[in-house]
Amino acid sequence: MSLLDRLRTCTAHDPARLRPWRIGDTAAGWVMPPVAALLDRHPGLFRPDGSGWRLDDRLAGPEARTAVLEDITDRLIEAGLVHRRRNERYPVLAEWGAPLLATVDRGAAVALGIKSFGVHLNGVVETADGPRLWIARRAANRPLAPGKLDNIVAGGQPAGLSLAENLVKECGEEAAIPPELARRAVPAGTITYMRDTAEGLRRDTLFVYDLALAPGFAPRNTDGEVERFELRPLPAVLAQLRDTEDFKFNVALVIIDLAIRRGFVGPEEPDYLALCRGLREPTDPICN
Amino acid sequence: MSLLDRLRTCTAHDPARLRPWRIGDTAAGWVMPPVAALLDRHPGLFRPDGSGWRLDDRLAGPEARTAVLEDITDRLIEAGLVHRRRNERYPVLAEWGAPLLATVDRGAAVALGIKSFGVHLNGVVETADGPRLWIARRAANRPLAPGKLDNIVAGGQPAGLSLAENLVKECGEEAAIPPELARRAVPAGTITYMRDTAEGLRRDTLFVYDLALAPGFAPRNTDGEVERFELRPLPAVLAQLRDTEDFKFNVALVIIDLAIRRGFVGPEEPDYLALCRGLREPTDPICN
Repeated sequence: MSLLDRLRTCTAHDPARLRPWRIGDTAAGWVMPPVAALLDRHPGLFRPDGSGWRLDDRLAGPEARTAVLEDITDRLIEAGLVHRRRNERYPVLAEWGAPLLATVDRGAAVALGIKSFGVHLNGVVETADGPRLWIARRAANRPLAPGKLDNIVAGGQPAGLSLAENLVKECGEEAAIPPELARRAVPAGTITYMRDTAEGLRRDTLFVYDLALAPGFAPRNTDGEVERFELRPLPAVLAQLRDTEDFKFNVALVIIDLAIRRGFVGPEEPDYLALCRGLREPTDPICN
Repeated sequence: MSLLDRLRTCTAHDPARLRPWRIGDTAAGWVMPPVAALLDRHPGLFRPDGSGWRLDDRLAGPEARTAVLEDITDRLIEAGLVHRRRNERYPVLAEWGAPLLATVDRGAAVALGIKSFGVHLNGVVETADGPRLWIARRAANRPLAPGKLDNIVAGGQPAGLSLAENLVKECGEEAAIPPELARRAVPAGTITYMRDTAEGLRRDTLFVYDLALAPGFAPRNTDGEVERFELRPLPAVLAQLRDTEDFKFNVALVIIDLAIRRGFVGPEEPDYLALCRGLREPTDPICN
């Protein structure tokens, strides 16, 4: 497989199957036919609007809208369209930095097709032979991507925390990186993509951070998400990423981005331009 | 001005005013109304095709096509639509890495709306107080952007040279960076944008390189393009870039990209996502 195939795995989606639900003039989410059918049958406070729906404008403020989205989440779970609640609140936003419109349970984020945000950390040890990267193997019992290779730290972005706070929290939980070390992580850009899944449309924005770690530091998982960590040369990680399906789908993009920034993937790569551009696809479908 | 305004300066264009000329099935160039009017009046071997033109399919191979483009260049100069020949051959490509379709004189690249490529080098000195960046002030007699601030080295990509060869050549000419040092430059990604200008549509792909320079190294211009060099802290460069019009339009993007990769522009920047995405706009107009 080429690196571009890894990218395409994350960006494959069919806009023609999507219908929007709006809060005011914002297309807050885009749903696929099974969820659309449920909203068509029982719209409740989702008022039919154009090709999709619009949350009743009398729902003033995030709390009232959140209550409606909680009802919808119940119905999605009853209908088997959402597996289960994750008991973590995700923000519903027009874009990162915009005012909070509502929150939804993380378990319903993909089915409702909202923009999701997350933090991914490259743990890098600089050596005389070049950069080495800490790679985590996800525990076999994870619901998403069990046993796949992952960044040293990665996590979804819940409502009510800043990115920096979330990164420090995840660094502690996933790798026992102490807060004072975690705060040295340096933002290095974003990765954005839309991807069809069985549950709905993922619309992901990953905030990428790099953290320089000393050769003596060893991460240790505390929350059961990670089975083990390995420190490996970046070129070897990249080769495994090309040749195997071992990496979680979006972690592949974070590593390709790191490899581009560090010059380990350069203009001699046939798909270089497509990769540089494709790591930053829009997360707003243009359709309907 | 915000950093996003700097980006918008480079990406402002109106697809509705563009008409394509094709080589086979490739839209090789997109022209604006004045050039379109000339092609409408005297199409020659530009055969009317859909909303635009298509080079006569009997022109087999780059040389025959180049001869036709030379004729057109003569007529563009006669009509005052191209200022002058630059006596440097630019490749006509469907995309970087694709087979050479033809060449045109650099002076006609924008009027004919072909994709242009270039190399831009960040010359970085790492200090205990953070990275410092070598900034060039362009000579007052440059036809493009006289007196503006520039990267330590930047140059258009002519046909017949590899990117690496071109970078070494430009490093020598613009900053007296010896070849063995220039070859240590590390690719760090690409920047792509389309921009309307008085002459036509710029469709630029910049291959970005970083070069770590020792504190003792001092660049010296040899080709008259640069008036002087200054070594300045990256945050100070960024502040000047926000507050003034001192930087050449596309150099601003190269520095914003560096600042994002190095964490000097992070998620606290209101337009962070728009910047990360906007530095990699497509260079293929979707219109007509």
